[in-house]
Amino acid sequence: MILRNMSKECVGVIGSGSFGTAVANILSKNSKVLLYARNAETVEKIKSTRISNGQHLHENITVTNSLEEVAQKCNVIFPVVPSSNFREMMRQFAPFLHPYHVLIHGTKGLDLILPHETPTDFKMDRSCIRTMSEVIREESVVVRVGCMAGPNLAKELALGHPAATVIASPFNEVINEGKRLLRSEKFQVYGNQDLKGVELCGVLKNIIAIASGIISGLGFGDNAKGLLISRGLVEMIYLGKALGGEISSFIGLAGIGDLVATASSQTSRNYTIGFKLAQGKSMDEAIAEMEETAEGVNTIKIIKQLADAQGIKPLITDTLYKILYEGMKPQDGLSYLMKYPGNIDIDFL
Amino acid sequence: MILRNMSKECVGVIGSGSFGTAVANILSKNSKVLLYARNAETVEKIKSTRISNGQHLHENITVTNSLEEVAQKCNVIFPVVPSSNFREMMRQFAPFLHPYHVLIHGTKGLDLILPHETPTDFKMDRSCIRTMSEVIREESVVVRVGCMAGPNLAKELALGHPAATVIASPFNEVINEGKRLLRSEKFQVYGNQDLKGVELCGVLKNIIAIASGIISGLGFGDNAKGLLISRGLVEMIYLGKALGGEISSFIGLAGIGDLVATASSQTSRNYTIGFKLAQGKSMDEAIAEMEETAEGVNTIKIIKQLADAQGIKPLITDTLYKILYEGMKPQDGLSYLMKYPGNIDIDFL
Repeated sequence: MILRNMSKECVGVIGSGSFGTAVANILSKNSKVLLYARNAETVEKIKSTRISNGQHLHENITVTNSLEEVAQKCNVIFPVVPSSNFREMMRQFAPFLHPYHVLIHGTKGLDLILPHETPTDFKMDRSCIRTMSEVIREESVVVRVGCMAGPNLAKELALGHPAATVIASPFNEVINEGKRLLRSEKFQVYGNQDLKGVELCGVLKNIIAIASGIISGLGFGDNAKGLLISRGLVEMIYLGKALGGEISSFIGLAGIGDLVATASSQTSRNYTIGFKLAQGKSMDEAIAEMEETAEGVNTIKIIKQLADAQGIKPLITDTLYKILYEGMKPQDGLSYLMKYPGNIDIDFL
Repeated sequence: MILRNMSKECVGVIGSGSFGTAVANILSKNSKVLLYARNAETVEKIKSTRISNGQHLHENITVTNSLEEVAQKCNVIFPVVPSSNFREMMRQFAPFLHPYHVLIHGTKGLDLILPHETPTDFKMDRSCIRTMSEVIREESVVVRVGCMAGPNLAKELALGHPAATVIASPFNEVINEGKRLLRSEKFQVYGNQDLKGVELCGVLKNIIAIASGIISGLGFGDNAKGLLISRGLVEMIYLGKALGGEISSFIGLAGIGDLVATASSQTSRNYTIGFKLAQGKSMDEAIAEMEETAEGVNTIKIIKQLADAQGIKPLITDTLYKILYEGMKPQDGLSYLMKYPGNIDIDFL
């Protein structure tokens, strides 16, 4: 069902944020692209300026605010919207989607579903949490789902600097489509069949990125960052396994590769939130200063609830929760972590 | 045989370079320390200024240039000298050492042993390569050997910033001694029984740190660094397994933790060499400008020889060899790596 005739092919991107725009520009090297923005005013502004989120749009990109048009013209579609809007977007999109559509999302957050009436003995578990591919499957008839994750800071992608990504899907067809559409000499594309694991890499690394921002904001350097990233990777793997991912994905490009990029970069939203907190800003101030959602803030809340319900104690996530939501000072959080007896280096392999 | 009476205990450090000095200062928080420098003039200078390699010495540190004194007064000794001098140092040290001594080294390089007369069908293999613990075992009667490796940039240790290390040894006694002597609220110590693996982490990460310096020197950012580090980790694991290490060590603090620190820091020697090369300096110029040995330069040569002899192709090491020793331009090396079809993300677990 997929149109192989490149001249006729049009690829869809849902979401004109910094990452969605960067993905549209990468796709536009090989294909015509239809970029969807929700807000009609935004669409008009992008059309007249040919600039979206500070990035010039390639001439192969057309902008629309009709989801129906995207579904009609495109077989392969990349949804890249914040997790807080993802389900709502899918509900609006679903009536236009068919089983032949391929959806490869680029959203690094979770969706939480709690029962309308919580029984007194209610205990949150994995069944209350959805990755974005699970939301797509729940809300639409689309079967061939995948995700895109890796060290893909939007501002650097926009500059055309070398980077790489992972397309994950249980369907080889989805992986191959993703490779064909995205790959260039500046942009490598790896495949991985562990869709859940790769989604969870992108989601969980945001937690560690916030911690990394805190460490930098407190004035500490690369030893502390190396310590954080190696312990953070261990915590990501424990949580990721518990949520249904495979260890190997966390060691790959979407795991450690994305973690290193996000936890080092002042252009990362999650790192920036942490940095501001360490400099004495409140959560509300820090969030108010951000242009786009830092997914990690919500992810910490979801993972903390799950961990409490399940009686597990992810040390870094737990400490960040105290800093973000219970007024613990960042310096005290770091001291607490440093005093914690960490005896065993790696015990999950 | 180990003196448990803290007031009488004296710990030895062999080597007054930046890392040796930093280790001596960390040890001095818990014990008296005897710091050995080879050069009598250096010893006199350190004694009069109480400064070694730019770092003020704690009052618990005594400086000496007698290896015999170190062996007599200390049961636990940390040799921290460049790999190129390590065997020679051990030969001078050996006559004073006894089976009750514990040696925990902090040297991140390899020793190459080629036969005096190379047969025409000579093929280099693992038996030609020694880690520093193997050199200690070969040259002395010491049995209880360990190493210290992790994100331990000397300049940051000297500032007392939070950091952590791994003490690796097949002997729990060595691990426990290392923990007891080094641990503080600013410095975490993890244990690992895979001595070879942890040594190889420290050795092989220097290769990737040179590559990281090149990427930064070419003006690229965190996406490219994330890509390099995740692919570099995969290459380290392949090489490390082939040389006798365990995968789990590479995913721990001495592997990914040290790699992240070294590959991000302008205070890392190996990163700096790469950075200078990318800015157009020759190998000779870059090395001449360094104050201390960048072990990675020699490690690349050894690993390249071994890989060629064994018919394997470690892509990053191979490309760096061309840049360092065969005049390939750093930019061309990066383009070559980016064009290389990397399809599978992780295939070793």
